[in-house]
Amino acid sequence: MLATKGYAAHSATDALHDFEFERRDCGPRDVQFEILYCGVCHSDLHQVRNEWGGTVYPIVPGHEIVGRVTQVGDQVTKFKVGDLAGVGCLVDSCGDCENCKKDLEQFCKNGSTGTYNSKDKVSGGVTYGGYSNQIVVDEGFVLRVSDKLALEAVAPLLCAGITTYSPLRHWKVGKGHKVAVVGLGGLGHMAVKFAASFGAEVTMLSTSPAKEQDARKLGAHKFALTRDPEQLKELANYFDFIIDTVSAPHDYNQYLSMLNTDGVMICVGVPPTPTEIMGFNLIGNRRSIAGSLIGGIAETQEMLDYCAEHNIVSDIEVIKMSEINEAYERMLKGDVKYRFVIDMATL
Amino acid sequence: MLATKGYAAHSATDALHDFEFERRDCGPRDVQFEILYCGVCHSDLHQVRNEWGGTVYPIVPGHEIVGRVTQVGDQVTKFKVGDLAGVGCLVDSCGDCENCKKDLEQFCKNGSTGTYNSKDKVSGGVTYGGYSNQIVVDEGFVLRVSDKLALEAVAPLLCAGITTYSPLRHWKVGKGHKVAVVGLGGLGHMAVKFAASFGAEVTMLSTSPAKEQDARKLGAHKFALTRDPEQLKELANYFDFIIDTVSAPHDYNQYLSMLNTDGVMICVGVPPTPTEIMGFNLIGNRRSIAGSLIGGIAETQEMLDYCAEHNIVSDIEVIKMSEINEAYERMLKGDVKYRFVIDMATL
Repeated sequence: MLATKGYAAHSATDALHDFEFERRDCGPRDVQFEILYCGVCHSDLHQVRNEWGGTVYPIVPGHEIVGRVTQVGDQVTKFKVGDLAGVGCLVDSCGDCENCKKDLEQFCKNGSTGTYNSKDKVSGGVTYGGYSNQIVVDEGFVLRVSDKLALEAVAPLLCAGITTYSPLRHWKVGKGHKVAVVGLGGLGHMAVKFAASFGAEVTMLSTSPAKEQDARKLGAHKFALTRDPEQLKELANYFDFIIDTVSAPHDYNQYLSMLNTDGVMICVGVPPTPTEIMGFNLIGNRRSIAGSLIGGIAETQEMLDYCAEHNIVSDIEVIKMSEINEAYERMLKGDVKYRFVIDMATL
Repeated sequence: MLATKGYAAHSATDALHDFEFERRDCGPRDVQFEILYCGVCHSDLHQVRNEWGGTVYPIVPGHEIVGRVTQVGDQVTKFKVGDLAGVGCLVDSCGDCENCKKDLEQFCKNGSTGTYNSKDKVSGGVTYGGYSNQIVVDEGFVLRVSDKLALEAVAPLLCAGITTYSPLRHWKVGKGHKVAVVGLGGLGHMAVKFAASFGAEVTMLSTSPAKEQDARKLGAHKFALTRDPEQLKELANYFDFIIDTVSAPHDYNQYLSMLNTDGVMICVGVPPTPTEIMGFNLIGNRRSIAGSLIGGIAETQEMLDYCAEHNIVSDIEVIKMSEINEAYERMLKGDVKYRFVIDMATL
């Protein structure tokens, strides 16, 4: 077993602090790598504080992981020692079900294994995430990472990136489409970058005028204040797609009414409480509201390769491991542009 | 002007009774026809009682209209005197907007004209529907009706038929798909017939065990009692499509959880109050919830032709015009299999 250092919370009200634990030895199909950077996702905070229920303590969060390979099993073919590598939200799935066979491991019929706070089918214990100095993962769930991009800014692509890239690709968003992005945070800023890169006309919808300049810098072509009835009137029946990245409770009907014929509102943020929708907003214009959850492994690799080719990364603020508790408080206030990334050398 | 007899309500609390009014003379592009049968849609009742607001009195309901042509304008090419003809929910639209050009007149950007209780752009007044002895409609909104089918049983195809046919075609439902139908009424019984005819495996979901035998007669392959947790457990992640025909408030989340990967719940019934949905039910399995509203004119003709070819009609109970008020009360109790149709000879 591999002695590993990390940061963990021991209860829902506990601050994260240093924690020592063991990982499995690198098996024949495993890739072992030193973690160099780990992004800080809002779901880390939700799970640390048990806001979705079911958290197993101690919890070592982190599923936006990049690093350098230190050991590979003898059946590993895609990686060698010294390569850059990444791991996102998944570290295992059955590989046999209809969804795994369609490269949709996130919807594995037998339950995929999350990178942390998930039952580990190999060890029988629980998985520990990327707020740590090393990790051992089956090669099938390890991503190749280009050295063309700033490594620390690649980390959030493993969750925030794929979560927005996947629905835009699934619904074939591109040239000629009018796309709105709701919420300018970790997910929203990547949705703007990808939708603009794919050729769509991108509008940032926000409650705050302060977001306009930032949104335009990221690639948005238009901006609308959702508190201004006049601006909303102009956007009635306007969009082909709305990417809603907001996970706080909010009014879906306002956005649905902005969808043109056959328009789709895609939710990648999930409010913890139910949201009310009016049926007339769906049957008018044959609108849909859909959800999307990260992406499969093959698509995550496709996204990373696309980012390397088109020079796309996340906008980040690098923090020390010891600053994580303060970073959570700042995230709750929306005080981050747009993702914290932990420099694991500071562990 | 054409002196016309019909049945109207004069207020939200008024019973329908006989009413005389005028229709426009048959213009160069118009088809005038004697109404032989008119189906009774639940939306007739909603609008008679002003349950959706905005009803203009007196109201002559009825948008499931079939009859025989008595006169045609000199520019009319598709109809001649003596032909069978039908009119559904629409009698006019701009013809120029992007939706009209895509044969989606129901979503006309400039506002389509409903067959009744709608602003009549020709007369400047209000439109009067099919609870009457004759109607004059622009040829573009008149459907050809086959003489192969029982005419009285064709009438409900003009609304209940197209409302269920259109989404099944739009989402390309067919062989290999598992489809659930929620609600066994006017819409639901047509959804079962069409989905089965298109080759899908059809399951009726109902709160009442009494519906099982009826659903199987209509073509359903399976039946599940939605009040039985054991039966629901087996249906988790099961369906590719759910056609929800219920317009009373009900729990969408129960149904969403039955959708398999990329499954779509299509609402053709619209509850008058908002419905709560849980975001986790959408992002899991990348599910969607969508709405659909009747269908365009070309698709309505396609549906009628399909029905003639495959011998599909509605299951109906023919009533006299004078029985309409009693029929409304029976509809409210669900006491109809599955559509009342008024024999206009009784007017």
